[in-house]
Amino acid sequence: MFPVITSADNDKLKTIRKLQQKRWRTKLGLFSAEGEDLQGPGPEFVLRAGVDVEPELLDAVSTLGSGTRVIGVYEQQWAEPKGDLLVYLHRVEDPGNVGTIIRSAHALADATVVLGPGCADPYSPKAVRASMGSIFTRPPARAELDALDGHKVALDVTAEREVRDVELTAPVVLVLGSERGELPQDAGGGLEAVRIAVHADSLNVAMAATVALYEVAHRMAADG
Amino acid sequence: MFPVITSADNDKLKTIRKLQQKRWRTKLGLFSAEGEDLQGPGPEFVLRAGVDVEPELLDAVSTLGSGTRVIGVYEQQWAEPKGDLLVYLHRVEDPGNVGTIIRSAHALADATVVLGPGCADPYSPKAVRASMGSIFTRPPARAELDALDGHKVALDVTAEREVRDVELTAPVVLVLGSERGELPQDAGGGLEAVRIAVHADSLNVAMAATVALYEVAHRMAADG
Repeated sequence: MFPVITSADNDKLKTIRKLQQKRWRTKLGLFSAEGEDLQGPGPEFVLRAGVDVEPELLDAVSTLGSGTRVIGVYEQQWAEPKGDLLVYLHRVEDPGNVGTIIRSAHALADATVVLGPGCADPYSPKAVRASMGSIFTRPPARAELDALDGHKVALDVTAEREVRDVELTAPVVLVLGSERGELPQDAGGGLEAVRIAVHADSLNVAMAATVALYEVAHRMAADG
Repeated sequence: MFPVITSADNDKLKTIRKLQQKRWRTKLGLFSAEGEDLQGPGPEFVLRAGVDVEPELLDAVSTLGSGTRVIGVYEQQWAEPKGDLLVYLHRVEDPGNVGTIIRSAHALADATVVLGPGCADPYSPKAVRASMGSIFTRPPARAELDALDGHKVALDVTAEREVRDVELTAPVVLVLGSERGELPQDAGGGLEAVRIAVHADSLNVAMAATVALYEVAHRMAADG
């Protein structure tokens, strides 16, 4: 048995505190996951309140207002941007949206999310929490859009055609713009703009992504 | 011109503070909406930082960590539980989920959300914020499920049939269970259980609602 950690100067606690900052996450190639439901396979280490560490010391390094029972530290995984269906994010700056889209892409289409420049860090505590474990099962990839091959379909509220009326040819890259509706200018081969049928234009990027993933995954399964 | 409010004892500021509590919202039949993007028609009153009130005093009654520029107070509106498509919530306890579903129901189906017993207050600050203005356009209704007429279709991850394979007969009541997956026991005429096609069971109730609303609204538009 290791002794229970009783000092805030402990190296593991210091590492967890550093991993709240993107700079340190990038430097160490690690991230932290808080909560019993959000642990994955192969941690570098796990601290459990009352077992490995005094509960107050774990709460002090938690990013949750309510404190936490468990924090695990893991190596960041990055996937290759490959597959019949990829989801490309253009300047999605909110970590909650990035995490939610990783979760939706996994749940609805088993698809990899590719982060372009200007996206929030998918390994920030908020993004990891929003991914609800999908970050372990379907880790994200990084690439620029013009480096991806495939039929590039961009969600755009001003598009004339609906996503359900468009012929899809695998591999498909579903392109999602920023929270302000910006789409990439240089797509390396052209973007086909499509929209979701709505009564009122008030879906956020994560909700629009969820609907589009459902539709595209179904269409590709039916066509394939 | 009214004088700028310079005292925290002001009645309007006191009202806003009270409206953070459900007890007072129910008693007064009012709610507050924070932020310039979240104002609606016909407020009881609106306070703008630096115009009607000293900014620090407005920040002090804000429920946002970052403070706010505008708070409006409005009368609660309650719709009748009527329409070709209703969304019934069973014990959805998270106000963010309630607000998000009101937003999705408006955007994707122009449908009214009916709150059964045990749901979060849709007029709490968090729910109002998540609804992104849809609370004004499509205010919710309150009813018990057995008081509603129609074809009752319940999302259930254990169902055999997919929502896209089910014949729908208007009026449709889309029934969504609690965050823990509970469905109502007494539906007053039977529930048809359906599921969304997923690769991994990790959609939360708001995401599942968004997908189901998209599918059901499309099916009903195509059939009608």
